[in-house]
Amino acid sequence: MEELIYLDNGATSFPKPESVYTYMDSFHRSHGVSPGRSGCDLSIETGNIIETTRKELTALFHGTDSNRLVFTLNSTDALNLAINGIVSPGDHVVTTALEHNAVLRPLHHHWRYNEVEVDHVDFDADGFVHPEDFVALFKPSTRLVVVNHVSNVIGTVQPIEAIGRLCRERGILFMVDASQSAGKISVDIRKSCIDILAFTGHKSLLGPTGIGGLYVGEDVVIRHTRAGGTGVRSAQLHHLEEYPYRLEYGTPNLVGIAGLLAGVRWIGEQGMNALHEHEMALTRLLVDGLEKIDNITLYCQRERVNHIAVVSFNVNGFEAGNVGTLLDGDYGIACRTGLQCAPLVHRKLGTEAQGGTVRFGVGPFNTRQHITTALEAVAEIAATFGR
Amino acid sequence: MEELIYLDNGATSFPKPESVYTYMDSFHRSHGVSPGRSGCDLSIETGNIIETTRKELTALFHGTDSNRLVFTLNSTDALNLAINGIVSPGDHVVTTALEHNAVLRPLHHHWRYNEVEVDHVDFDADGFVHPEDFVALFKPSTRLVVVNHVSNVIGTVQPIEAIGRLCRERGILFMVDASQSAGKISVDIRKSCIDILAFTGHKSLLGPTGIGGLYVGEDVVIRHTRAGGTGVRSAQLHHLEEYPYRLEYGTPNLVGIAGLLAGVRWIGEQGMNALHEHEMALTRLLVDGLEKIDNITLYCQRERVNHIAVVSFNVNGFEAGNVGTLLDGDYGIACRTGLQCAPLVHRKLGTEAQGGTVRFGVGPFNTRQHITTALEAVAEIAATFGR
Repeated sequence: MEELIYLDNGATSFPKPESVYTYMDSFHRSHGVSPGRSGCDLSIETGNIIETTRKELTALFHGTDSNRLVFTLNSTDALNLAINGIVSPGDHVVTTALEHNAVLRPLHHHWRYNEVEVDHVDFDADGFVHPEDFVALFKPSTRLVVVNHVSNVIGTVQPIEAIGRLCRERGILFMVDASQSAGKISVDIRKSCIDILAFTGHKSLLGPTGIGGLYVGEDVVIRHTRAGGTGVRSAQLHHLEEYPYRLEYGTPNLVGIAGLLAGVRWIGEQGMNALHEHEMALTRLLVDGLEKIDNITLYCQRERVNHIAVVSFNVNGFEAGNVGTLLDGDYGIACRTGLQCAPLVHRKLGTEAQGGTVRFGVGPFNTRQHITTALEAVAEIAATFGR
Repeated sequence: MEELIYLDNGATSFPKPESVYTYMDSFHRSHGVSPGRSGCDLSIETGNIIETTRKELTALFHGTDSNRLVFTLNSTDALNLAINGIVSPGDHVVTTALEHNAVLRPLHHHWRYNEVEVDHVDFDADGFVHPEDFVALFKPSTRLVVVNHVSNVIGTVQPIEAIGRLCRERGILFMVDASQSAGKISVDIRKSCIDILAFTGHKSLLGPTGIGGLYVGEDVVIRHTRAGGTGVRSAQLHHLEEYPYRLEYGTPNLVGIAGLLAGVRWIGEQGMNALHEHEMALTRLLVDGLEKIDNITLYCQRERVNHIAVVSFNVNGFEAGNVGTLLDGDYGIACRTGLQCAPLVHRKLGTEAQGGTVRFGVGPFNTRQHITTALEAVAEIAATFGR
């Protein structure tokens, strides 16, 4: 196959910066030992790299205490750890129809098995939720609000600053799923009054898979729902109360943390805004081009501000999955089709019957030529199969 | 510093085989994309590598259905996922004093918050538990037995085949923590009547950190305690019932799985028995040498069979942590000191007051010269500080 044109950066960013690959390999060869205080110098150095990564991510998210930045397997894992440790029977949770199954499913299980009430705020025709719709649902039992900062289907950036303020005023915990936004646009814990932030390393933070995490605000209590070795105070049978140990257990993903550190540093060197501007310039080219093709439906792209480089569309009358298969097989273009693990978005868009949407996710290593080629490919497919 | 003599393989094996480093890097560069059916060919190939890893590990453990081999962050995570999905209020669990905090702490939390009764079978002076001691504790409410296949402090291999048979006869679920044994000695799910096996990739399976897993027998029901995206049947809000999806959620640690596959294959090429024999020959040299040094106490090393290459000792009258600091700083030897996350072992050995033990873990890349140098170092420390 010719060079792959990778436009599935909404799933996983690919490729990674060269420094991510290089640092992971050299770190693994030189420092791939268990961190901790009871070990050798090498082990202490490894621990220091973990602490540095906590600090740099905390700074990126405008947090105040890097000990409250904990590492998990991925953002789904982070969201489960937080949700399961917060909600109790009788609680009311408000979330949105824009959520990923990483939020929808844990909350559905709490609704079904744990007497937790869950409401989903709907989004408008442009793909945005409205702060006042949250307020309309609040009641005395409302304990938690969970909002997807950026939809992984349609790329719309939600007004988390306004929602966060409304939650803070009422003493309701505000959790933000920053899986799509972290590394692409500003995620500001203080400004948006975020109590719990979940992130993943392998998307726009440009690290590998297998590493995500939580930032937990100082006044938030997350109960222990898992426990294990912490490397310190091993004599105590109760898992530790203090952070970061409280929400970490067993040996962490060291190579993953190293890769994430390299990703965050690369973003810092390039400038997050510059990277975003590059991606958005290509995205505007993409959307403008798609709009000119007959028999194409674009979703929530009328409003051009408050978007990231994720675009969903369909070829009218043709299954999304078939478009993906043709793009991949005939044109060497990687995208993602289907429901993208966000079923309520598709229910609202009316795209379930068509097998979801075709999603392009533009990343830092995409070029104008990639977009031009993708547009030519979609035009040919739409001309042949669209109606 | 001169070449480090790494004798902390009980914590994390280091270095890894060259093929593990190489394969992880090349896999990450060529296939580091999200797996799944809704993606491109590359994404399907990535999925195939995950399935291959499931199959090779299932074969290694003598399992029957590779779909029931699921991946987790580490073995602690695997044990939490299994324990939390099995026990209910009123259940009785029998475990051992040899367990790691990865088992002790989750069970302690269930005892404290969830009305679960927990008993710990003690080990004898040589470091072994006895099957009849489990039977003596069984009662109608006994639902689960959890046993550490090999102690991470003293390296003793427990009689899991006999314990497993006793559990199976009584319909009690048998869970084995194979963190220390997997990759070093035979772990046979069928022969030992194991219902749930937990393993980690970064110790004797010679993979990286950040990857572990469970093998779950066909008749075992583990309730959902976490949920999220599965990449298939995304429209359903309930997490999937079938394996492997049932216990996996979100994007897996792809590079970790690739590294684990490379580790398992390297072990297959070398021969697990040959590697074990190499390590045990060095361990016998180590133990014989330590026995000849004055003012040294060895723990549970009188019996030489049913041991792996993990040895705990102390310099009499001198804190374990100080020995480790001297070994590291003055001799360039990495070991692990303290309680090694297994507090009940130290309570029984009476080593708590001395700050635990000094632990050497011998790995496939250790040499006779490493052992000779370590013995000389310990002899000097014992001559100076022992009494």
